[in-house]
Amino acid sequence: MITLYHFDASVCSEKVRMVLFEKGLDWENREVDLFKGEQFDPAYLKLNPKAVVPTLIHDGKVLTDSTLIAEYLDEIWPTPALTPADAYERLQMRLYAKACDEGLHQGIAVLSYASMFRERLLKQNKSHDEMLKHYARIIDLERRDRQMAVYEQAQDAPHVYRAVAAYEKAFAKIEKTLSDGRTWLCGGMFSLAEINLVTYFARLEWMNLLDIWLTERPLTLAWYERIKARPCFIAEIAGRMRTDEWDEMRKVGSGPWRGYVTEKLTHYRANDFGAAHY
Amino acid sequence: MITLYHFDASVCSEKVRMVLFEKGLDWENREVDLFKGEQFDPAYLKLNPKAVVPTLIHDGKVLTDSTLIAEYLDEIWPTPALTPADAYERLQMRLYAKACDEGLHQGIAVLSYASMFRERLLKQNKSHDEMLKHYARIIDLERRDRQMAVYEQAQDAPHVYRAVAAYEKAFAKIEKTLSDGRTWLCGGMFSLAEINLVTYFARLEWMNLLDIWLTERPLTLAWYERIKARPCFIAEIAGRMRTDEWDEMRKVGSGPWRGYVTEKLTHYRANDFGAAHY
Repeated sequence: MITLYHFDASVCSEKVRMVLFEKGLDWENREVDLFKGEQFDPAYLKLNPKAVVPTLIHDGKVLTDSTLIAEYLDEIWPTPALTPADAYERLQMRLYAKACDEGLHQGIAVLSYASMFRERLLKQNKSHDEMLKHYARIIDLERRDRQMAVYEQAQDAPHVYRAVAAYEKAFAKIEKTLSDGRTWLCGGMFSLAEINLVTYFARLEWMNLLDIWLTERPLTLAWYERIKARPCFIAEIAGRMRTDEWDEMRKVGSGPWRGYVTEKLTHYRANDFGAAHY
Repeated sequence: MITLYHFDASVCSEKVRMVLFEKGLDWENREVDLFKGEQFDPAYLKLNPKAVVPTLIHDGKVLTDSTLIAEYLDEIWPTPALTPADAYERLQMRLYAKACDEGLHQGIAVLSYASMFRERLLKQNKSHDEMLKHYARIIDLERRDRQMAVYEQAQDAPHVYRAVAAYEKAFAKIEKTLSDGRTWLCGGMFSLAEINLVTYFARLEWMNLLDIWLTERPLTLAWYERIKARPCFIAEIAGRMRTDEWDEMRKVGSGPWRGYVTEKLTHYRANDFGAAHY
């Protein structure tokens, strides 16, 4: 028996839902509306003290951290396999998961926050004290500091530059990996590498920014399209997007953010990419 | 055939050496002196584009990321096992690895940098331009920004507060987990959870700061002492420390840093710990 606490538009929830879909598993639905602050509900905090989604309950056991939940599900229900049988390929797959958890996740959070959620907050005309109270609720200090910096500095926060860099490194590595003609990144199979990565790329596409990176990376683009054609993507990511969310996101890449991102990417490639080409 | 590029005093190298020791594996030694900047050597960057240690070569395959190398070694040489057989316990073990990679690692890097390496740099009386050049070499942008902030703001950098918080959360969780009388954290066995965590605690002890957290946490202290008694700890961590390193570290907790850390910990417990108690 599986119960999933999740939110439709959360990238980490998307990841776990895709795995559940691939495995053909049924699950009981518990929505946690992040925009209403339901993740701070005391009952939910008992399950997930970090106040993030998803949380998965399996036969009474409480599981947190979407990357680890994905591995857990694949270990308990090994068919169809989402993890390569070879240990070296498995390490490569986990490196992609780490690129998400230690780079792309902050990256998309920063880009979304700086270009959309910040605007929403500004419209509320909160006082300085109200803003401090707002940020004090955030339990993860790195996240709190990051959101405050982005609120103050918008596109000039160093976090925005690092977000652009995280995407550039990931795309460069993927294009290089696919250059031997392979269909999927690890072990000759659709794996958790694809499931981990695709949620971060879909968000970027919907923000109308993905082409900045992929116009000159045809292999990555074709690989991304292959993932998008899978039923798990259609059901658990694209199929759950609301029209108003889509509209808000699409505006990002048509407005000044296209210029901000392009400029930072150009700077990064010229100054900081160097040896980081991997 | 295993070749290990590593540095005696690097926490991530310690982790992989402990696993190799537990497995009884022989390895060829390649030192990368971080203080001499050998991690930026072009030949090494080809193996490890992030310019960090360790890198492990196994039968010609290049492996990076110490947490993933540890899992790899345990998968290839499963005896003695360092990973619980139960999937739920394995997830718990990996959560500890994540607490290291996403919190304690930055934590110890910040505390070491702010209290020791910063002093070394200050003594060199570098010009502003020289300092910019020094930081430009750092490939990981988060790390570069972090070191620059700590260089400028020392104990007042938000990173220092977050470092103290990361340790507090880890210790609180461990003490709670051990409260049922268990000897080891996961699956009733000495596992990668212990190997991942201990390197971060040993460094804190040598900096003469560990007691600030552990005086009131007897279970964690006893557990830490159990790990310290193991031959892998003695051979691969304690046995490789140089006297001058030890002397430099010991000074940290006897000087003003004892006050800085205590003050931040008190503030964190009073203001920000709250629901983060996990």
